[in-house]
Order: sequence, then structure tokens, then C-alpha cells
Amino acid sequence: MPGIPREFRVSLPAWLDDELAAVPATIPDRAARMRLVHRLADRNWREGNGGPFAALVAEQDTGRIISVGVNVVLASGVSAAHAEIVALSLAQTAVGGWDLGAHGLPAHELIVNWRPCVQCYGATMWSGVRRLVIAGAGPELEDLTTFDEGPLGADWAEQLETRGIDVVQDQLRDEALAVFRAYREALDAGEVAVYNPRGESE
Amino acid sequence: MPGIPREFRVSLPAWLDDELAAVPATIPDRAARMRLVHRLADRNWREGNGGPFAALVAEQDTGRIISVGVNVVLASGVSAAHAEIVALSLAQTAVGGWDLGAHGLPAHELIVNWRPCVQCYGATMWSGVRRLVIAGAGPELEDLTTFDEGPLGADWAEQLETRGIDVVQDQLRDEALAVFRAYREALDAGEVAVYNPRGESE
Repeated sequence: MPGIPREFRVSLPAWLDDELAAVPATIPDRAARMRLVHRLADRNWREGNGGPFAALVAEQDTGRIISVGVNVVLASGVSAAHAEIVALSLAQTAVGGWDLGAHGLPAHELIVNWRPCVQCYGATMWSGVRRLVIAGAGPELEDLTTFDEGPLGADWAEQLETRGIDVVQDQLRDEALAVFRAYREALDAGEVAVYNPRGESE
Repeated sequence: MPGIPREFRVSLPAWLDDELAAVPATIPDRAARMRLVHRLADRNWREGNGGPFAALVAEQDTGRIISVGVNVVLASGVSAAHAEIVALSLAQTAVGGWDLGAHGLPAHELIVNWRPCVQCYGATMWSGVRRLVIAGAGPELEDLTTFDEGPLGADWAEQLETRGIDVVQDQLRDEALAVFRAYREALDAGEVAVYNPRGESE
């Protein structure tokens, strides 16, 4: 069976270097960490890399930033390359192993600008993070952006808590919605490519 | 923010080259495709790359193999690198885009040796495949292997069908269970490393 691919790669876009140049290595204030996520989410769709989504992994107690991720589905050509998968995989690359909750490591948290889709919900569960921090969890994301997030049970947060992952909700919620609204306005104005799981870019 | 990683890579293990050397580029018979998946799943845990899981993406009508994947969580150090994510991402690399269901492409199917975990369930949903073929879907996987697969709703298959993804179940089911049983025996005999989302390798 010759010719089948042996490796795939997912990279952060080059504009992140600019965006992060003035960002300190440690951001002790959680709201400030979420503010950075919102800023990256907003720039991400404007740059055409993918949807209006960003994430980061930080050490829970110190606020040291281990990785950042943005949705690079369009840029990478990999449908799994949502912001959470990118941030978690890069964090694991940084610490040198698949388990961010391993003995000997500080506790890690994943910060995202809305409740993860069903894929990234599972990815969070298997990553070893001890906390998930989200800007919000309601239907507003799907209503505003038109993205399908997939089916999650009503007990989605308890299912994380049961597995030792704290869930912190409603962190800078209005700021998240402002990003989604801006994306939607550009969508309605025909200024950005739409993509969704059942069709190609339009 | 210097020093944070910009890229992650996931590669197939070297032993797959041997394993695939005599495999034809097209396998028209679906049972034969599943048999290959079972063989790769069985070798994968014995080689120490990760759990007893494999997957492949094929053109639905011809049986041409686009990609294969195995669970390389341990080998890659990326917790998301389950067999399905690897096979889907490599298939998207092969076709040159994130949507395996795009206009102009033949219909693709994902073949896996059991029902996907919650992460890979979502990944299947967003990948563009038109069919999911699995060896089985019951609690036997978790009971035998001790892996946590996460919460899926009772309507998990309907949720895929609603999104245009056919679900074909119980394909070489007994052969799947035989792989899981062999893995469990090695586990009980202390011959393989255990890993799980809430702890490190033991």
C-alpha cells in the first residue's frame, strides 16, 4: 500500500507571533487570560484560518501560559484542528507527554471562549487538565455563528467533574458574544467563507 | 511570550510499513477491510504505541484505502491521537482538504474496531465521511479493556444519521472482542503499561 500519508502536522498561524509578542509568559489574572483568548478568537476568523475560536492552556496556580490554540481547520486542512485540540496537543508537546495531569506536573487548566463541541469535550476529558474555564455554555454560540456543536448531555459538566475536571463558567461572557456577533455580521455580509461539517466552503 | 510550541506532529509507527507492505491499495470487500483494522489494532498494543485500536478511511464504493490510523497516544505524546483522529487527519492530508465529503470527492467511510469514544464520535461528525462502520457498540470494550470512552447519548447513531452519516454495526464483532480479550490478558499479567485519562502510565 504505497503512497498513503504517514504524518500530519498542525501549526499555529504566523500572525500569532505578532499578537503574542507583547504578551507576558505568565498572566496571573484569570480574566486577563480569557481576554487574550477572546482577542485571538476575534483575529482568527478575520485572518481566515477558521472559526472564531481560541483556547489556551495555563498552569492553574501561577497563570503561566503553556500553549495557545486557534481554530485552524481551514488553514491546516484538518477538521479536528479546533482551538482546544490545538492548545491541548501543543501543551502536551511542551510538557513532553500526553497527560497534563501526570504526577510531578503542576495542575493545568484549559480556557476556551465557549463550551467545547462534542469532539473537544472528549479531548478535554482525555487531556489531563484539572479545570475547564469557559466564557459561556448556552445556545447563543450555535445561534450566532451557525456552527453545529454536536450533541452533549444535560449532565455534560457533571461528567467532567466526575473525572476530576472542575468547570468554571460565564467568564467574560458578553465579550465572547461580541466576537460571535462580529463574525455573524461578516457572514451575513458575505465577507467570510462559511464552512460546516456537511458541506464545503461556500 | 517566547518558547511556546508552534506545531505538533502525529506520525504512524514504523512497523506499519511492514504490516502494510503486502496489502493492496484497494480492498473491495468490507469484511476484509475490517479484518485489516483488527490486525493493526492487535499489533498496535503489542508494539506499545497505545491502546488496541485501529481505523482506516476508504472510498466507500471502490474500497480504495486512503489512510490508516492506530492509537498513538503513548508514541506521540498527544492524548487526542486516537486511531480515528489519526486516520481522518491523514485522509484529509491525502485529499488536500478538511472535508472528506466535499463536492468532487468520492464518498468516504471510516472503519473502526469499536464505537468511537466521545472525542472521536465528534471528530467523525466533523470529518465529512458519509459512513461509519464499526465492529460493535456495547459496553464490552470498556469492560474488557478498562478504557473510559466517555458519555454518548442513547441516540448516538441517529445523531450521525441526521448529519448524513450512515452507521453500519456488528462487522466482525467477535474478532474485535478477541483483540480486546488478548489485551486484557496482557494487562492482567502486567505485561503492558496501563494508561487512562486520570492518571499516568503505571
